[in-house]
Amino acid sequence: MGEAVKLIGSGNSPYVHRAAVALRLKGVPYEFIREDTTNKSDLLLKSNPVHKKVPVLLHGDRAICESLVIVEYVDEAFAGGPTLLPADPYGRAAARFWAHFLDDKCLKSLWPALWLEDGEARAAAMAVAKGNLAMVEEQLKEKRFLGGDSIGLADIAGAGMLAYWLDVIQEVAGVRVMGGDEEYPALRRWKEEYLAEEAVRECLPERDQLVAHFSKIRDKCVSVAKSMLPN
Amino acid sequence: MGEAVKLIGSGNSPYVHRAAVALRLKGVPYEFIREDTTNKSDLLLKSNPVHKKVPVLLHGDRAICESLVIVEYVDEAFAGGPTLLPADPYGRAAARFWAHFLDDKCLKSLWPALWLEDGEARAAAMAVAKGNLAMVEEQLKEKRFLGGDSIGLADIAGAGMLAYWLDVIQEVAGVRVMGGDEEYPALRRWKEEYLAEEAVRECLPERDQLVAHFSKIRDKCVSVAKSMLPN
Repeated sequence: MGEAVKLIGSGNSPYVHRAAVALRLKGVPYEFIREDTTNKSDLLLKSNPVHKKVPVLLHGDRAICESLVIVEYVDEAFAGGPTLLPADPYGRAAARFWAHFLDDKCLKSLWPALWLEDGEARAAAMAVAKGNLAMVEEQLKEKRFLGGDSIGLADIAGAGMLAYWLDVIQEVAGVRVMGGDEEYPALRRWKEEYLAEEAVRECLPERDQLVAHFSKIRDKCVSVAKSMLPN
Repeated sequence: MGEAVKLIGSGNSPYVHRAAVALRLKGVPYEFIREDTTNKSDLLLKSNPVHKKVPVLLHGDRAICESLVIVEYVDEAFAGGPTLLPADPYGRAAARFWAHFLDDKCLKSLWPALWLEDGEARAAAMAVAKGNLAMVEEQLKEKRFLGGDSIGLADIAGAGMLAYWLDVIQEVAGVRVMGGDEEYPALRRWKEEYLAEEAVRECLPERDQLVAHFSKIRDKCVSVAKSMLPN
């Protein structure tokens, strides 16, 4: 009997999705503790005093924060199930490189492309976002998933957002970064294969709920996008 | 006889310092390939087509990019020498959490505090930077290094900048974020212990050279700091 595993999260966050998918893929049973992110709980503030954000993984008396740190922890702490990072050091470095690229560059670059008002700044942001997507497309041309034959760290870092959240956000924003996907055939295939995994489908919020969520926080999204522009 | 190890870098970069310290601590002999970052080489562009930045580690025919990815790779690919991450999954997660906090939050928050013109925006940035430093201070109260008794991933992520580069940049900017260090006694002790390591001292540029470098790129530093402010 292992120690209790609990995931503090919210239903609408693609970061929480990452942690949940890692747990499901590894076959780790866990309790989901739903956090009201507009009125943060003492448990969250105590468990993640630095960032005060979901997701937080509780494993016995230990708290692990930051979604990609959680994914690597889940891979290392729980035997059994598929491995989320390859065994060889170079494969592990490549997984971390692409996870970081998706997290820090590619997904962030979508925001100004989606939420700025139509005009020069948005056109420039769109070009950057599309350039980043093209780099991921290139990686996927010869591989089923970024990590190889099965879902790994880098896929978990990006596929939730690109395969599921983005479509909703594009609808709410009224802007398309990835259109009919004729541009990105490898990305399209990758997204379909990601969503076909049962462990992934168990960790997706209802589409209507997501649409309502992003409609509600629309102004905040616009203001975050503006803050990402150089002055 | 292992495969050749080469580090593409420049003498003034705290990111290159991270990779070099990891190699020295592990006792891995390497060739340093000095890159002219104002006129990037074909080798750099071919080895790091995504970011086009130093450091890049070449190990045989493999290229590993991004300084913190390189540090983990060096720890995993080369047996011998001290380990840069602990063996237990929770210790590894903590190392990655603090490395990421230093890299993404703490060091970035120094920039507007150092380079903005005196005024409200700089005062606000200074408060954020000092709050981040206080969180690192708190971690170091009971420990010699962030990872425990010896230098690890999180120390390598932050100590080069905080123990060596920052002092030079403060001189060039004419602003102090960490003053006489009475405020941060644990950080002061940590910085001294980091700089006392031979492997670290071998990877430090001359102080005069760094002063000249930051004096030369002063305008660019100011403009980066401005771009980090919300619009």
